[in-house]
Amino acid sequence: MDNEKKRSASFSKGLLQSGELYQYVLETNVYPREPELLKELRDMTATHPRAIMATAPDAGQLIAMLLKLNNAKRTIEIVAIDMNREAYEIGLPVIKKAGVENKIEFIESEALPVLDQLLEDVGGIVVYDNTLWAGSVAMPEECTPEILREGRQRTLEFNKLLAADPRVEISLAPLGDGITICRRMH
Amino acid sequence: MDNEKKRSASFSKGLLQSGELYQYVLETNVYPREPELLKELRDMTATHPRAIMATAPDAGQLIAMLLKLNNAKRTIEIVAIDMNREAYEIGLPVIKKAGVENKIEFIESEALPVLDQLLEDVGGIVVYDNTLWAGSVAMPEECTPEILREGRQRTLEFNKLLAADPRVEISLAPLGDGITICRRMH
Repeated sequence: MDNEKKRSASFSKGLLQSGELYQYVLETNVYPREPELLKELRDMTATHPRAIMATAPDAGQLIAMLLKLNNAKRTIEIVAIDMNREAYEIGLPVIKKAGVENKIEFIESEALPVLDQLLEDVGGIVVYDNTLWAGSVAMPEECTPEILREGRQRTLEFNKLLAADPRVEISLAPLGDGITICRRMH
Repeated sequence: MDNEKKRSASFSKGLLQSGELYQYVLETNVYPREPELLKELRDMTATHPRAIMATAPDAGQLIAMLLKLNNAKRTIEIVAIDMNREAYEIGLPVIKKAGVENKIEFIESEALPVLDQLLEDVGGIVVYDNTLWAGSVAMPEECTPEILREGRQRTLEFNKLLAADPRVEISLAPLGDGITICRRMH
């Protein structure tokens, strides 16, 4: 947990050239338009030791727009995957208050075993979070803070797999800790 | 023109924490999937004195995905607006080679007078480029390189207008020089 805290502390500027630039985006574009319940959830989780793993509010804003563009209409609109149900449980009361519990399916699993099943529809999208791992993917291993090394290696391998997958088109956008948007082409 | 060159030179790392991180995104995710004709266009324009104003390849990749998600089907799928037709003329031979000239409407104008007309459809999207102006929007004016000051001021005002526009939902994504995606909600 202490390690996660250290990692969070080193991440106040997002992936950007300065903390001020990240704050500018958040304060002008994100926070003023954040739905009340999302703000409540953000406040609830801000001091959680693994807060770094939460989807950043700027990334969440883009994901919300992608969902609307993709015209998500099926009963299950969002599938969330996590190896640990605890994080989902934290948000669940807010999800219920928003009346969207029936639109979210939670799967307790590592991501890879269930991904093929998620991407079965042409035109379907999957968004991965933390795909730039605090920027460490571009650091030489010996210069990478110890706390980031294991995740850096996993993220490098994961990104390589995605980049080589001919079924999807991708966009790696440096919001939050990096999100990779994948859309199944065929 | 010299000023534009200076601005371009100061921008090799995009908006990110390091040039290496921006290169990582480009080299792993963007360049390997770049269509041949887009690469040709990028090579053609790389040494242009106003190259900084070109849509960055990472931003272009996300915009391409947004268009597909939005299921753009009308005859005119893309409207490009520029005060100066010259930039469009540079790309026109490549656009013709790709056979998509009939899908792009070019309007020689300042952006603001034609924007309301573009956003007339609910669900329509407009993407603005250069909305973080090399990160200068978050710099105190006195610390901002002279070359960026006028654009910084214009960009700050423009972003404030967008952020306050109740017709659209927005996402400011730090790809390239910053893109703001707007979707008309009602």
